[in-house]
Amino acid sequence: MLTNVEHIGIAVRDIAASNDLFTKLLNVAPYKAEVVAAEGVMTSFFRVNQTKIELLEATSPDSPIAKFLEKKGEGIHHIAFEVDDIEGEIERLKNEGFTVLNEVPKRGADNKLVCFLHPKGTNGVLIELCQEIKE
Amino acid sequence: MLTNVEHIGIAVRDIAASNDLFTKLLNVAPYKAEVVAAEGVMTSFFRVNQTKIELLEATSPDSPIAKFLEKKGEGIHHIAFEVDDIEGEIERLKNEGFTVLNEVPKRGADNKLVCFLHPKGTNGVLIELCQEIKE
Repeated sequence: MLTNVEHIGIAVRDIAASNDLFTKLLNVAPYKAEVVAAEGVMTSFFRVNQTKIELLEATSPDSPIAKFLEKKGEGIHHIAFEVDDIEGEIERLKNEGFTVLNEVPKRGADNKLVCFLHPKGTNGVLIELCQEIKE
Repeated sequence: MLTNVEHIGIAVRDIAASNDLFTKLLNVAPYKAEVVAAEGVMTSFFRVNQTKIELLEATSPDSPIAKFLEKKGEGIHHIAFEVDDIEGEIERLKNEGFTVLNEVPKRGADNKLVCFLHPKGTNGVLIELCQEIKE
């Protein structure tokens, strides 16, 4: 089950400047910054009720965020839904005809297992499924 | 205060087909459809916890959604934050340097007063503020 809009990811060119901007917009400071080396991104997180706003800056030209910025410019990059059983949801969505970009969940930011669906099958929206890692 | 991610608006070309698609994705049916004649849009709403997913199809070629689809194709169109005092927030955000597209809140879908911020001042993200109309 998709239980919550866990976060909305926004691609930005200069995360320091955007941290200031979103602090003014949301009237709250980011509560966390995190580098995800495997994805080539620097992130920061703001909390608005049960949903986070995640800012993403590329740390390498190979990063998916660098490619997104080049192609589309700054803006909303993905929506992440919290799931309670990521393997089960991947299976369910594959059976429904969605294209899963990574069939084995991978480690993302914010202590989550994540999986992405191809935006060609979801009206151009990059969808992330995420589940908290419990250790 | 921005108290919640009230909804995420997604521009689609064929809302009937997208209703089916998002019903599969979210594993829940839309709970409401609504035409907003003043904006030239047909909408449908899905609920995921405290956030709604709003699909938007243009009903006229002058609609902002028609223009968005032409320029960018299908995808995420805006993020809407719930506010508890829309006039107060407009004033606060203007003072913080944001560009408000309509300084007087207007009537939007889903029984809301709404106001939009120019995406040039918010890293390319079209931001809506919305407040429930209580009558």
